[in-house]
Amino acid sequence: MSSIGQSMYDFATELFPINRSITGEGVRQTLKMCSDRIAGDDGITFEIKNVASGTQVFDWNVPKEWKINAAYIEDEAGNHIVDMAVSNLHVMGYSTPIDEWVDLEELKQHIFTLPDQPDIVPYVTSYYKERYGFCMSQNQLDSLKPGKYHMYIDSELFEGNLTYAELVLPGESDEEIFFSTYDCHPSMANNEVSGPVLMCELIKYVKTIKNRHYTYRFIIIPETIGSITYIATDNHLQHMKQHIVAGFNLSCVGDDRDYSIVHSKYADTLADRVLINVLKTHTEGKYSDYSFLKRGSDERQYNSAGVDLPVVCFCRSKFGEYPEYHTSADDMTLVSPEGFQGAYDVVTQVVDALENNKTFVMTVPCEPQLGKRGLFPTVSKKGSYDAVMAMMYFMTYADGRNDLIGISEITGVPVKELIDIAHKLHENGLVEVK
Amino acid sequence: MSSIGQSMYDFATELFPINRSITGEGVRQTLKMCSDRIAGDDGITFEIKNVASGTQVFDWNVPKEWKINAAYIEDEAGNHIVDMAVSNLHVMGYSTPIDEWVDLEELKQHIFTLPDQPDIVPYVTSYYKERYGFCMSQNQLDSLKPGKYHMYIDSELFEGNLTYAELVLPGESDEEIFFSTYDCHPSMANNEVSGPVLMCELIKYVKTIKNRHYTYRFIIIPETIGSITYIATDNHLQHMKQHIVAGFNLSCVGDDRDYSIVHSKYADTLADRVLINVLKTHTEGKYSDYSFLKRGSDERQYNSAGVDLPVVCFCRSKFGEYPEYHTSADDMTLVSPEGFQGAYDVVTQVVDALENNKTFVMTVPCEPQLGKRGLFPTVSKKGSYDAVMAMMYFMTYADGRNDLIGISEITGVPVKELIDIAHKLHENGLVEVK
Amino acid sequence: MSSIGQSMYDFATELFPINRSITGEGVRQTLKMCSDRIAGDDGITFEIKNVASGTQVFDWNVPKEWKINAAYIEDEAGNHIVDMAVSNLHVMGYSTPIDEWVDLEELKQHIFTLPDQPDIVPYVTSYYKERYGFCMSQNQLDSLKPGKYHMYIDSELFEGNLTYAELVLPGESDEEIFFSTYDCHPSMANNEVSGPVLMCELIKYVKTIKNRHYTYRFIIIPETIGSITYIATDNHLQHMKQHIVAGFNLSCVGDDRDYSIVHSKYADTLADRVLINVLKTHTEGKYSDYSFLKRGSDERQYNSAGVDLPVVCFCRSKFGEYPEYHTSADDMTLVSPEGFQGAYDVVTQVVDALENNKTFVMTVPCEPQLGKRGLFPTVSKKGSYDAVMAMMYFMTYADGRNDLIGISEITGVPVKELIDIAHKLHENGLVEVK
Repeated sequence: MSSIGQSMYDFATELFPINRSITGEGVRQTLKMCSDRIAGDDGITFEIKNVASGTQVFDWNVPKEWKINAAYIEDEAGNHIVDMAVSNLHVMGYSTPIDEWVDLEELKQHIFTLPDQPDIVPYVTSYYKERYGFCMSQNQLDSLKPGKYHMYIDSELFEGNLTYAELVLPGESDEEIFFSTYDCHPSMANNEVSGPVLMCELIKYVKTIKNRHYTYRFIIIPETIGSITYIATDNHLQHMKQHIVAGFNLSCVGDDRDYSIVHSKYADTLADRVLINVLKTHTEGKYSDYSFLKRGSDERQYNSAGVDLPVVCFCRSKFGEYPEYHTSADDMTLVSPEGFQGAYDVVTQVVDALENNKTFVMTVPCEPQLGKRGLFPTVSKKGSYDAVMAMMYFMTYADGRNDLIGISEITGVPVKELIDIAHKLHENGLVEVK
Repeated sequence: MSSIGQSMYDFATELFPINRSITGEGVRQTLKMCSDRIAGDDGITFEIKNVASGTQVFDWNVPKEWKINAAYIEDEAGNHIVDMAVSNLHVMGYSTPIDEWVDLEELKQHIFTLPDQPDIVPYVTSYYKERYGFCMSQNQLDSLKPGKYHMYIDSELFEGNLTYAELVLPGESDEEIFFSTYDCHPSMANNEVSGPVLMCELIKYVKTIKNRHYTYRFIIIPETIGSITYIATDNHLQHMKQHIVAGFNLSCVGDDRDYSIVHSKYADTLADRVLINVLKTHTEGKYSDYSFLKRGSDERQYNSAGVDLPVVCFCRSKFGEYPEYHTSADDMTLVSPEGFQGAYDVVTQVVDALENNKTFVMTVPCEPQLGKRGLFPTVSKKGSYDAVMAMMYFMTYADGRNDLIGISEITGVPVKELIDIAHKLHENGLVEVK
Repeated sequence: MSSIGQSMYDFATELFPINRSITGEGVRQTLKMCSDRIAGDDGITFEIKNVASGTQVFDWNVPKEWKINAAYIEDEAGNHIVDMAVSNLHVMGYSTPIDEWVDLEELKQHIFTLPDQPDIVPYVTSYYKERYGFCMSQNQLDSLKPGKYHMYIDSELFEGNLTYAELVLPGESDEEIFFSTYDCHPSMANNEVSGPVLMCELIKYVKTIKNRHYTYRFIIIPETIGSITYIATDNHLQHMKQHIVAGFNLSCVGDDRDYSIVHSKYADTLADRVLINVLKTHTEGKYSDYSFLKRGSDERQYNSAGVDLPVVCFCRSKFGEYPEYHTSADDMTLVSPEGFQGAYDVVTQVVDALENNKTFVMTVPCEPQLGKRGLFPTVSKKGSYDAVMAMMYFMTYADGRNDLIGISEITGVPVKELIDIAHKLHENGLVEVK
């Protein structure tokens, strides 16, 4: 087991207990921990940005900030039958304050459960309609006896800020590769402490690339309102449309059951091509391929009419497709070091493929004489034969019509093998970048 | 059962007995009845046109007009063993006159049957070679005893006219939607009193559309020579090539067994797209899809080299694909109110889809906030969820790259549902026509 | 059985025993026999060209010429256990001289066998590394007893020439159809005396075409180094890129088991289209379709980056796909008159299709009146109906958008039938070449 997956899992364990929402202290604490993690020796880390409540962002307004101190339901005996201190899922996100004794029937009006999954607690929010509520398991609800119950929520909605993190790592080109993830969920592991964890590890990897070709833009934002706010402010929309050549929303990237892509709306961008290409090789074809009609996370905003950015979504098990999604069962047992490692391997290969995705042209007509350069294995064996075929394929299609990913698409040779071939032929003066 | 299908069936019953051919009184009588049917309160109805026999129409000449008064075969006992007065299928179309007693062997030279369908009478014509003939069932032929038979046909071929009906209903645009059907068959129901019946009902529908976008052109002509004549005369070819954006030949539209499209020759026109789209929704995918290689009616002329119009053919059960085709069994029991109603529902949906087939563009980047406008269902349930998804899909692809039918093709949402969504969003200022 | 297939088989029998390699007397003798065969009455035949050893051809140099007088292994009793005089496969191609007694263990270092096919002798060469070797069956090797063996090869590598044959038959157009085959294999029948045999017969056929539209270029060369040399010299590359519209490498064209195409690298050239079209009709769809990833013969050079010619490979059973390939079992029993005839039928149909591959346009709009011209069968029967349908299809798609092969692709009507139809309609003034 690679130590990177374990290290990611350990960081996820630290982030897991924090009570996050689309605004508030939990978000700021999470972003601070992410900033510290990536700062390293160079000190290069996220810039934390605030956008004031009420700011108009296209058709929306930045919501009030939510602060919550305590939330519980108390029975007549003084027992806290649910308490946010035990699990922050027990309180509906953005609940307004309440302090009232009610009978069981009225209490039930404010309780959310999952009748089909009676053992676990749902995750519920109400950002845009002011109300309050509690979440518990259906079994617990069924066990409640008639009587008086004390609904207590000590919370506050006030003019504050929406907070997000942004980091741009410049490259030789002002063309950008874009990564986006979100941090607005309370204690759930796959969806969604896994996203920020993966992004941090990816940033550390991108920092190590010498002579980066592309500029990289990374953001951690609250889902939906955060991506809308980001796009709408600081002239980001115009900048992104001009510069982003491929973008990736990272979501649910910590479990080890599946690999998934949600395509961009026309499934025809460089982001679609590179992620499909890497997934095919990495999973030997065993990944899930979702059309944009199955989208659900921030790829919605990036692909919306008028934004139209080349952004796909990368998941291990896709949101909405695994039973623990948006429940208390999405805990640290659902994710694993292996799950994180697999996601990390994919996104770093995506970056490698993009950095090397040049259009190559052979410098001599006809096949070159590989033997005299020691490029042709003198002893033929099964493995070496395949390596030779891969090289021959590359040389044929390095005719100025295809980028490296295109050659991989035509020939089936993995991009990482083609990168080695291209370097070897380039050292021998047989190929040039167009 | 909708009363429209019943009303169409009743009108078909009136048209059925008339003896039609490619020219003559039967045609004129049929067109008169059609004109009366659509005139309504506004008095807007077909214009009846005549083209003189002998007129050159491209590679053809308009044929002589055919008039027939009586036709029978009499046996020695004076019995009329077949008589056109009983069924007009008993005389071959365009038969020349004859009045002669012959023996059985010679009689047989002039009789057409269907050996594989021995109970029924075939439909036979000879427009371009002057001859005469009778049609009967194989069983009847087999029962004839040796003896003398009197072949009697009182007919006339003379310099007259080819007659057709034309109606243009203008719209805001001079781009045209074209409908064509034919009226040259004697007493057969599906092929072909159904076509004129459907066209009349469709015209009544198109008249009701307020602020029609398109101009509509409707013609009822004899098959083949009629469409050739129409295209060749009055500068129609040039006009049609400049203005027609989608055209539909209506044939065999009264039975209730199937729905069919015969594609245009490259299957890539707006007519193909809209009819396929409507058929998919209306039949839940259970329709027959024929390539142009299976064409057989006037779509042949509209798609011919040098004409090249975007015309498909719409049928319930396609000509040549049902056993009663071109026989006495294609009678009023083969068609039904349900059959007519289904055809009417399809063609009116085609018109609705075309009228609303705009290219839409959202007015704000990112998804708009549906909730504050009451567009987002506050109570989520299965049905409402799908409605929301359909709206979300529309908003994503209303990016200026797709017409409404294109959005339906990508998302699978029926056009009629998209029309409602577009209207609702337009009322809320969220979408504009590009 | 056609006499052409038999005649080809007989010529192959004459060529079979000659000891060929990529250079040398065997090649010159083979080319002389081919030249004599095609000269006929007009005396038009191949031009024999020589390129000196050492000449640089792109990344390669023309190799030394190889001359071999004798080669055998002698045992202590004086028996020649293998001798090139019995089969020229027993000596490795391009073997350097040797005259040495060795024990069995050392002998084995210089012997090549096929352990999986223990009865037969492999074909082995070493053009670019100077060494020597013998080939025998695994069974023979296993039977050798310890003792002394005399390895004797009387050969010479010297500054000589690479020899090839070229013939250009001019046509009305300077656009060229290109055929290439190779002659560098010793006594093997399918791979490869069949190639030169087929090319000779094809040349005789092309000579008979009156008013040839295209110019035809035919070459017989050694494989790989020969095609590289040809492309690299005499300004051929520039000429070929300017003029060749379709090219065909002929290889393994004498057996009767299969028909095969190896596509050009993007499978989108006129050569791909015409060969696929002819194969579909000729084999009723039962042919093997290989992507360029399965290429292996001179199509490699013609499709290489920087050369990029529209060249496919035509085979009966494809090289590498039949068990006798590159062994002594590829002898005159593997090929047959039927095999040669089939290959001949395909390539001559390819030529016919190309010569007639015009873009036609009908001279009148709408379908013409076939009856008055006697083009419409007066008696309808199954066969004549299909013929009429083929004519109707042709007339529809002769609209200036498709070449003849394109019409065949759309309609499924074989090109040879379309050629007849086009001629018949052209005679009647109904169609013109665009």
